[in-house]
Amino acid sequence: MEKHDFIPEWLEREPDQQTFRSIFKWGEKDRFKHPAQGFYTVIKEALGLSNVDFQTPVNLGDKSVENTLKTTISPEDIILFETIVGRENLFLDTYSRLKYSTGKSMEDILHLRQGKIEDISDIVVHPRNRADIIKIVALCHEKKIPLHVYGGGSCVTLGLTCPKGGVTLVMNTHMNKLIQFNEINHTITVEPGMMGPEYEDLLNYAPERLNAKRRYTGGHFPQSFEFSSVGGWVVTLGSGQASSYYGDAYDLVVSQEYVTPTGTFKTHDFPATATGPKINDIMKGSEGCFGVLVAVTMKIFLYQPETARQFTFMFPKFETGIKAAQQISQAESGMPSILRVSDSEETDVAMKMYGLEGSLPDKYMGFKGLKPGSRCLLMGQTDGEKYFSKNLFKQIKKICKTNQGLYLTGYPMKKWQKGRFSDPYMRDALNDFGILIDTLEASVTWDRLQALYHAVRDYIKKQPHTICMTHASHFYAQGTNLYFIFITKMQDVDEFRSFQRGIIEKIEENFGSLSHHHGVGRMMAPFMEKHLGKNQMDILRAIKKHFDPHNIMNPGGLGL
Amino acid sequence: MEKHDFIPEWLEREPDQQTFRSIFKWGEKDRFKHPAQGFYTVIKEALGLSNVDFQTPVNLGDKSVENTLKTTISPEDIILFETIVGRENLFLDTYSRLKYSTGKSMEDILHLRQGKIEDISDIVVHPRNRADIIKIVALCHEKKIPLHVYGGGSCVTLGLTCPKGGVTLVMNTHMNKLIQFNEINHTITVEPGMMGPEYEDLLNYAPERLNAKRRYTGGHFPQSFEFSSVGGWVVTLGSGQASSYYGDAYDLVVSQEYVTPTGTFKTHDFPATATGPKINDIMKGSEGCFGVLVAVTMKIFLYQPETARQFTFMFPKFETGIKAAQQISQAESGMPSILRVSDSEETDVAMKMYGLEGSLPDKYMGFKGLKPGSRCLLMGQTDGEKYFSKNLFKQIKKICKTNQGLYLTGYPMKKWQKGRFSDPYMRDALNDFGILIDTLEASVTWDRLQALYHAVRDYIKKQPHTICMTHASHFYAQGTNLYFIFITKMQDVDEFRSFQRGIIEKIEENFGSLSHHHGVGRMMAPFMEKHLGKNQMDILRAIKKHFDPHNIMNPGGLGL
Repeated sequence: MEKHDFIPEWLEREPDQQTFRSIFKWGEKDRFKHPAQGFYTVIKEALGLSNVDFQTPVNLGDKSVENTLKTTISPEDIILFETIVGRENLFLDTYSRLKYSTGKSMEDILHLRQGKIEDISDIVVHPRNRADIIKIVALCHEKKIPLHVYGGGSCVTLGLTCPKGGVTLVMNTHMNKLIQFNEINHTITVEPGMMGPEYEDLLNYAPERLNAKRRYTGGHFPQSFEFSSVGGWVVTLGSGQASSYYGDAYDLVVSQEYVTPTGTFKTHDFPATATGPKINDIMKGSEGCFGVLVAVTMKIFLYQPETARQFTFMFPKFETGIKAAQQISQAESGMPSILRVSDSEETDVAMKMYGLEGSLPDKYMGFKGLKPGSRCLLMGQTDGEKYFSKNLFKQIKKICKTNQGLYLTGYPMKKWQKGRFSDPYMRDALNDFGILIDTLEASVTWDRLQALYHAVRDYIKKQPHTICMTHASHFYAQGTNLYFIFITKMQDVDEFRSFQRGIIEKIEENFGSLSHHHGVGRMMAPFMEKHLGKNQMDILRAIKKHFDPHNIMNPGGLGL
Repeated sequence: MEKHDFIPEWLEREPDQQTFRSIFKWGEKDRFKHPAQGFYTVIKEALGLSNVDFQTPVNLGDKSVENTLKTTISPEDIILFETIVGRENLFLDTYSRLKYSTGKSMEDILHLRQGKIEDISDIVVHPRNRADIIKIVALCHEKKIPLHVYGGGSCVTLGLTCPKGGVTLVMNTHMNKLIQFNEINHTITVEPGMMGPEYEDLLNYAPERLNAKRRYTGGHFPQSFEFSSVGGWVVTLGSGQASSYYGDAYDLVVSQEYVTPTGTFKTHDFPATATGPKINDIMKGSEGCFGVLVAVTMKIFLYQPETARQFTFMFPKFETGIKAAQQISQAESGMPSILRVSDSEETDVAMKMYGLEGSLPDKYMGFKGLKPGSRCLLMGQTDGEKYFSKNLFKQIKKICKTNQGLYLTGYPMKKWQKGRFSDPYMRDALNDFGILIDTLEASVTWDRLQALYHAVRDYIKKQPHTICMTHASHFYAQGTNLYFIFITKMQDVDEFRSFQRGIIEKIEENFGSLSHHHGVGRMMAPFMEKHLGKNQMDILRAIKKHFDPHNIMNPGGLGL
């Protein structure tokens, strides 16, 4: 008989310095999160496991990274880099090189847990300023040394690996300063290595910190918010949890300054212009393949949390929840900042995680025919000017009710908001017991959504003992995204890769994009040619060749 | 003593066929508009003219275009084009070649009035479909024959001239069909030669014409709406009068299909995607320099004129009107569809044109200190879902009142709407008496607006006897545009060119864009390198070279 009060010994201790674990562990070294007991039970049951499986952690990555790997860059060249940034900003040790060549993709983590050191850079350089970067790019161009850029390190698409070695520029050490705050234009210009919390804090406390008249927000809150950089958002086309109102990173960028092997330039900061194809847009999403972003001007918004209104509805099934979300997105009442529609599997887990299962509201839902295994949670938040937010909230309620949605107050939404940035910590806890948890995501038009959803879900669920939770979370009048979270017992990298490849193929076959907001990296790179077609890839190749004739800028990135 | 009841004999007769006049005349051949008597008086006084100056029309372009100019394309090559499109779709006569090589820029018109035939194509071809265009582009590429694209012909930037001769493709003859209407995704896919009214009509009457459930609008209403094509909007980055809510053409495009010398491709129609730099965006604004647009998918919106609310306010001066518009644009209550702020010179003319001068409201304004020579008109319209529109209207009123705006009801706005597409007809009437009327426009951030406004205005007003009316009409949280209308007595092309060049330089010096929504054409092309800087122009050149290694696609366009 399975003991119900068994609690696994979740590993909650700071990783030792210089260990593999200290590299792959999510977030703060002394912050942890493990599945709540309800979620633990779900996982155990769905994955066909028992408490025994949670007794002995595996592949903890506790070993130190030994300083064995020699750099392949000549001592003479190393001195040239040192002369630019100073000895204190250049690192050759294996640990540093490994650390800044890995992101947070499942594959990165599996490798690190197994103590594998692969595809790392030869030198880690922390540039102090724009001038340093101009010299480094010129030097790498001249010497044909590959150059990679590391922002916050939260990449989940193998975007930071360095198969050809070379240099990694770490931007969040020094290249993280405010350049200009412009309250008149509602813009802020920062160096790209500024991290999410510092950026948002500057804006929220603009009167105190920037002598501003009002408070502002950047409106960009990806799950990786705390450990991602402004520049990273821009060059990988990220999207925050409130993007439906504030826009994706793509929409938030006003202008950019780049240093490329063929020159430096800053795009204009006009609110719009009809002077031909926009260089500003060509650079967004370039993932370090064209040049190094050294400054970015972003739109900012009024920070007025007092106008926010949270809502949660339960729908009989995913289709009706999606239908309501589509109607909300096309109603022209403005867009909610946050909107999330979970499928039934995710809804059932959420009910357990938020402690709602078996509660009075749960019973009422049952009475209303909103049953586990079918019901679907829609939640969100409206923002903006007080009465705009109020009216939108009202219109959303109306649309949801018309589509058989049962209003559950704002409570579950507020619960979700509390954990919105901390869920990635749970991944380490599960990985410690050999349980894989990963995600893939795609954008899709409304008319293709259901086919894509079922094809991917069916594929994932064919893997025995696998959880597949799906939600749509970024909305547009023309469509949305689907975000698939899968949890299964798997540790072998090759097995995982082949499983993942199958999902990507299903996305591609069913007219999903290769990514809505994770980016391309080396994970999606092999699929890009098929996805865009040769003629479109050739355009990107031509641009790449213009900027980077020696192919030193993140070589292999974007599939170029 | 000047007679006040004198009315010039405005020329209101259909131009004869095959005349220069039949080419440059705006719009329908049997539609006319001349300045109302109040406006006539303003012009006369400001330009230091008298009734005598309006007695003898000049340079009417009534001469027939003689069929004298031989094509420089070989008879063998002409047969090849004929084989593709059929004899009935190919024209070699000078009239056709001139007609499709000229737009509606002041310079085009001055030339035509003087009977000048310059920079025209050798052959005019009306392609029947995508397949024709693929063959034509391949043929031109092979034979190195320049290829130009003509949409609706409303271009005001010398974008249609053919200094190197070659072929002009006319898109609005056959390439004007509906491809797909997608009510689920709120999109419509059309051939690029579909004209504004047909496009909007299809959408407004979607239930009757497309078997749709609801009515829609494209939301794109440039002043040239009736005589511009959907493709033209996209490749020149146009902007409609309701763009502040619906977006610029740039924002409205979901996906595009292009035929280029190096291949054909169709971009994806995802609502968003993080798969690297977006080919879809690289093509927008390419002005025929990269390839021929053969299909475009656009966003559509609910057509609900019943929710629209018009408003007009009078402000003590331009600065306060602009300040209110800035606050509206940054208030996060949503954006009005139409918003226009006129400077005092334009306001004074508007008061005369709308017959408000000397009226009771005018007297009340005077009483309130809103005096001619200083007061400034702000008008606009809210759209969207009923309560969204209602709240926005309310918030706008609040902001305007806080900024000393006097509410004048929606009446002047409705008056303006009636003439919104017909004002260009007036140009012909004035030109007939040697009076030049032209416009230049630029986008600008809020913090640079006043400096740009004064620099350009001062420059224009230095020209003796010149009217300069200015408004801002496309709004963003980060800035707006300035649209300068100047009226002066001038007929000499060189004098005009030099005057215009001075304005462009003032715009450039004062951090305005070269164009907010007119595009580049050959008018702005010479200024592009300075405007974007060599490094950014080199990027465009690299892309151009990729698509068009023989430089046949609109050679010289965009300054490439």
